[in-house]
Amino acid sequence: MTQTAEKHIQGLGVSEGVRIGKAFVYSPFRLSSETDMEKKTDHPEQELERLQTAKERCIAELDALIIRAQETLGEEKAAILKGQVSFLNDPSFYPPMQKLIQNDSWSAETAIHRTVNQVAGLFESMANEYMRERAADVRDVGSRLMAQLVSHQGNRLSDINEQVIIVADDLSPSDTVQLDKQLVLGFVTRIGGKTSHTAILANSLGIAAVLGIGDALDQIAHGNELVLDGSTGEVIMNPDQATIDVYLEKLQAEEAERERLLVYADRAAVTTDGFTVEIAANIGTPEEAEGLPGKGAEAVGLYRTEFLFMSQLEMPSEQTQYEAYRKTAEAMSGRPVIIRTLDIGGDKELPYLDLPEEMNPFLGYRAIRLCLDRRELLLTQLRAILRASAHGPLKIMFPMISGLEEWRQAKGMYEEARKQLTDEGVSMADKIELGIMIEIPSAALMADRFAKEVDFFSIGTNDLVQYTVAVDRMNEKVSYLYDYFHPAVIQLIKQVIDASNRHGKWTGMCGSMAGDPLAAPLLLGLGLHEWSMSPTAIQKVKQTITTLDRSACIALTGQILELDTPAEIRQALADFLNE
Amino acid sequence: MTQTAEKHIQGLGVSEGVRIGKAFVYSPFRLSSETDMEKKTDHPEQELERLQTAKERCIAELDALIIRAQETLGEEKAAILKGQVSFLNDPSFYPPMQKLIQNDSWSAETAIHRTVNQVAGLFESMANEYMRERAADVRDVGSRLMAQLVSHQGNRLSDINEQVIIVADDLSPSDTVQLDKQLVLGFVTRIGGKTSHTAILANSLGIAAVLGIGDALDQIAHGNELVLDGSTGEVIMNPDQATIDVYLEKLQAEEAERERLLVYADRAAVTTDGFTVEIAANIGTPEEAEGLPGKGAEAVGLYRTEFLFMSQLEMPSEQTQYEAYRKTAEAMSGRPVIIRTLDIGGDKELPYLDLPEEMNPFLGYRAIRLCLDRRELLLTQLRAILRASAHGPLKIMFPMISGLEEWRQAKGMYEEARKQLTDEGVSMADKIELGIMIEIPSAALMADRFAKEVDFFSIGTNDLVQYTVAVDRMNEKVSYLYDYFHPAVIQLIKQVIDASNRHGKWTGMCGSMAGDPLAAPLLLGLGLHEWSMSPTAIQKVKQTITTLDRSACIALTGQILELDTPAEIRQALADFLNE
Repeated sequence: MTQTAEKHIQGLGVSEGVRIGKAFVYSPFRLSSETDMEKKTDHPEQELERLQTAKERCIAELDALIIRAQETLGEEKAAILKGQVSFLNDPSFYPPMQKLIQNDSWSAETAIHRTVNQVAGLFESMANEYMRERAADVRDVGSRLMAQLVSHQGNRLSDINEQVIIVADDLSPSDTVQLDKQLVLGFVTRIGGKTSHTAILANSLGIAAVLGIGDALDQIAHGNELVLDGSTGEVIMNPDQATIDVYLEKLQAEEAERERLLVYADRAAVTTDGFTVEIAANIGTPEEAEGLPGKGAEAVGLYRTEFLFMSQLEMPSEQTQYEAYRKTAEAMSGRPVIIRTLDIGGDKELPYLDLPEEMNPFLGYRAIRLCLDRRELLLTQLRAILRASAHGPLKIMFPMISGLEEWRQAKGMYEEARKQLTDEGVSMADKIELGIMIEIPSAALMADRFAKEVDFFSIGTNDLVQYTVAVDRMNEKVSYLYDYFHPAVIQLIKQVIDASNRHGKWTGMCGSMAGDPLAAPLLLGLGLHEWSMSPTAIQKVKQTITTLDRSACIALTGQILELDTPAEIRQALADFLNE
Repeated sequence: MTQTAEKHIQGLGVSEGVRIGKAFVYSPFRLSSETDMEKKTDHPEQELERLQTAKERCIAELDALIIRAQETLGEEKAAILKGQVSFLNDPSFYPPMQKLIQNDSWSAETAIHRTVNQVAGLFESMANEYMRERAADVRDVGSRLMAQLVSHQGNRLSDINEQVIIVADDLSPSDTVQLDKQLVLGFVTRIGGKTSHTAILANSLGIAAVLGIGDALDQIAHGNELVLDGSTGEVIMNPDQATIDVYLEKLQAEEAERERLLVYADRAAVTTDGFTVEIAANIGTPEEAEGLPGKGAEAVGLYRTEFLFMSQLEMPSEQTQYEAYRKTAEAMSGRPVIIRTLDIGGDKELPYLDLPEEMNPFLGYRAIRLCLDRRELLLTQLRAILRASAHGPLKIMFPMISGLEEWRQAKGMYEEARKQLTDEGVSMADKIELGIMIEIPSAALMADRFAKEVDFFSIGTNDLVQYTVAVDRMNEKVSYLYDYFHPAVIQLIKQVIDASNRHGKWTGMCGSMAGDPLAAPLLLGLGLHEWSMSPTAIQKVKQTITTLDRSACIALTGQILELDTPAEIRQALADFLNE
């Protein structure tokens, strides 16, 4: 690496921690504009080779798919895939692409694009239905070819084989789902705010993260040495030795603090005046449950099952799901696990579900809305959970409930699944607690009615704030409005907890507010029963709780409920904790 | 017209009324996919002519713009436009397009697209900054050419010159803004729900409308005879004489009912036990205010100023706005007019504002958020309103308020505008009432705090439902969840009205709920003070109110507040009205 001057970049620190390491600049190929489809090349021979490699990989991919299709999907599906292989070998398909490169110096992308359009266009213009279906095959094989072609133009997160700091425009759930998290020291991204997917992921994995550094990102080259401070939002490129020494010291201090907090893993979260709350963890995979008890998690308060669905190329079977849920239950050795049924849609897509494009996905077809519409999906999941309930105390909660009808329908499906399994003679837990997420204002407002029917609530502050204040937390132009200390949000949380108390039920919280030590006095004052957070936050929150007096928190909460703005409320809490 | 069989199509009736007339199939040209950019033609001579016409129109347009630019924007801007004209006449630009058509049978679109890419690409590859700016000019002139080219491929709503039923995929606010509403009998659209822009527009103009007929739309040809029933959602294509007779009778019955309701124009909305409410109208233009008093409107409860902004190619000046507001005030001859400050963003775009693309525009940068960010915009509007306040009792309300800070900032800007005008010696009303829209759950939840500071509330049920239930009302997959009779929404409305009463303020409503006679007993029971609705709903709602006993409505409302679902609440109201 050439020695260049140290450079400081300021971003938004969203996940604490100092890290020193090499930049892995993640640049997946994205086929974005149509100008990509009008690209000439100065090196036709290279383009021909790229095309040839793509074709070979494509055939290998198809051959593997054919074998799998024969085993699982049947001969008909396999025949379609075989047809695609024969297209790749057809003289009307591959040679014209080669000619476009050789004779006219078009790029391989352009050559594929034009040939596919021409051949498919020809088939599409025919009246014969069989031929029109072949057009779809041509377009499909064209996409495969393009995907193979471009996959070696960018890089992939699965290529990472050493410890690095990932530098990227943004990280989507599907980008990160197959990441080897052991190798990731930190994230630096161009866009994203405190509650973006990347921030949540970083927090839950204890990865330091600085987001939203904007165009400064373009200055960071693959392999550059970086220093990252997730607390201050600082990124330092090409740090000199003096800087490195300063941050090494900070890193050691953090390590010492982590050591110091370790004692809280085994302590209960009890206030100085004897009020105990349950501290739970949010997880995305069964693997994350392993070792949780050792970190101090007394339960899993939110198991996000969507990652199980997103890491597969097709819908996970009942058996696959059962195994994942059972594994999670067993990892928690008798501690409760709350499984949230599939919360897909919005910013979380599943390619095999073919979800509609929506103008406002956050107000759209997602979570329980989708699951009540595609009943088989929810029924399969409920059966898998019920089967796994023989291996540990599982609870179920439904996401995005907005009214009583949805809850009643979901509960009806639970009973249907239970009846099916009973008829089949399958063993299950006798009683499973059923709850709902409170993340839509209407559900919070109707908490009193719900509390008569459900066993528990879990408040999802991220979405609840989003809808209550009408702000997309991912939208940089308005994210300043996103704050869980908004007085209206606090009022809703209070209503929910009070309603559950009135009916002898309990309320948990699995949004990021629960893991924020600043919120602890308020949540204690409001009487929150179960606090579920990123595993990395547990010890710190336990420490905070054990230093607090609940009756003082109740008095403080009374004052906070009278305040007008999020800023005033944050100030009151900070003052209280610093007293 | 050839005689074909009668055909019935079922859609969603969103605006009442029977209509019989010819279909105007609206098919604006939309440059959508990249395949449009790969189009061959069988008639090169026609394409050459299209290109030539587009070029001539483009030059005429530029010449007009140059004159305007010289008058208003200065010589520098004019010089850029002159440069664009010279490109159109350059041998490197226009002749290559002609050749692509003549020699290779490409369409005119493809010829423009390729030439522009090639020429601009060349400039872009140069290191010289001046040349790179020229690339932008080339792309700009290419867009102008394309726009001229395609504008005569589809048709335009401004082409309508006889009474027709408009048949379209959907109608956007900008589609409808320059429509001659006198010529429109009805709307039939492929998509859209009860609260889409098209539905609201149809209701406010008394245009019958059936939306969401889906792919059945493709069966309707331009000029087809149609019967439309906006109550039942029926569309009948090629009706035979017997059908026409049946619907002519229905039409006459509707006419008679309208005549009968006319007496309510002059009556006050007083219940049988003497409770009076104010009945106001929602309008979008000063012209709509004319004749309103004769229809029974006692005020304008919502003047949507965004249409003034959307119907112009650039930001309307303070003087233009002043004239519109003054005209509205004068048309209402001393009756109150509530002007809502600019509510743009979301699904309402302004080309000259250059708004960002957003993933969830309804949760994004819009209305007061945008106006507090672009202060000049709001300041200019407030100055215009203040100046017009010398000509009639105007009130101001701010949209999309989510917290106290936003209201306080907006009020601060109002005071700034007032001070400026005072310093300039301009005459204004001494006191103007300032209010806020209640359309975000957080504002409704904090109504008690707001009531201490504002003069009035106006509940916008459309957005309030959308955020409270987290449902995009335009999204067909989830619009079933959109219902202003949701128990949580009713609870919020109650909180708002109660809060205003406690502080001696008043609450209005300008969402579609206020114009729904089914909601009248509930809104009377809750004590809503001002009801603002589409002008066409006024007499019917007045009639309903005058038949009701308020104490019975209060008792009913008590029962409704205990009900669990929108369906139960609708039933209770229907039963009550039918007693």
